[in-house]
Amino acid sequence: MTLHQTPFSGRLSLTTKETKALKPRISVITLGVDDLEQAVLFYRDGLGFSTEGIVGQEFEHGAVAFFDLSSGLKLALWPRRSLAHDSGLQLLPPNAAAFSIGHNVMSRSEVDEVMGQAERAGARIVKPAEDTFWGGYAGYFQDIDGHLWEVVWNPQLLPEQSL
Amino acid sequence: MTLHQTPFSGRLSLTTKETKALKPRISVITLGVDDLEQAVLFYRDGLGFSTEGIVGQEFEHGAVAFFDLSSGLKLALWPRRSLAHDSGLQLLPPNAAAFSIGHNVMSRSEVDEVMGQAERAGARIVKPAEDTFWGGYAGYFQDIDGHLWEVVWNPQLLPEQSL
Repeated sequence: MTLHQTPFSGRLSLTTKETKALKPRISVITLGVDDLEQAVLFYRDGLGFSTEGIVGQEFEHGAVAFFDLSSGLKLALWPRRSLAHDSGLQLLPPNAAAFSIGHNVMSRSEVDEVMGQAERAGARIVKPAEDTFWGGYAGYFQDIDGHLWEVVWNPQLLPEQSL
Repeated sequence: MTLHQTPFSGRLSLTTKETKALKPRISVITLGVDDLEQAVLFYRDGLGFSTEGIVGQEFEHGAVAFFDLSSGLKLALWPRRSLAHDSGLQLLPPNAAAFSIGHNVMSRSEVDEVMGQAERAGARIVKPAEDTFWGGYAGYFQDIDGHLWEVVWNPQLLPEQSL
């Protein structure tokens, strides 16, 4: 008897769907910040991201700013205090090496341009752009709350023009 | 003389592009992990994300696993030690309340399903799903390295079916 002839064969794909509820999707990246207004200035005026500004101020722990990114992804800035309150997790000092946000660009010169823009916006240059061991060119900066961004030219992972 | 008649008028948009090099794009979210193989098991087998597995092992600090997410976004798992080495930042204990990854779903019941799947995969349920002050329904879990995910039903921010 082959697999396709078992009594269960018709349910295999359904079963898979039932047990794999989580789709490979990230909708929002929320960065905890110390001073929401300063963080909005950094991302809106410094980096040039578009936002409607701070909303939700009528709610306790509600004040937040959303930025529309490419491909429907949203970046949210939310006080670390609010994130800790909402999740119930302890409020600890930021740890910059826990994760990073990768921003891929089309060329080496665009890496330099973006690093320059970030520095002018008040970011800390953690590692100036340099050649990477895997054949690309990349640098790191931290936003004003210490969140780590990597600006990357990877000839094998170029962004689509529309993204 | 109106703005459009100044000698600079033709360069205004170009100048804007020159000074706003950074496009509103996140290409990769890299999560620092303690044990890369265990983390791959959690995301691949537990959550059902698709990956080619660990690559780059021929390079020092090169071992990494990439997962393809919706809309071209990639999730990378990389040893925290490698991220600290590459960025030059200090290796510190993880701080879960520094950021969160939002996973929006279509319904309340899907929140419950995803939270259940995460728990079965070995995640720690930080806050069971409950009604939120803004009219939605959401819960938090931490992956095996402490990274915080929020599973969210927000009737005003439903995912597109294709995402």
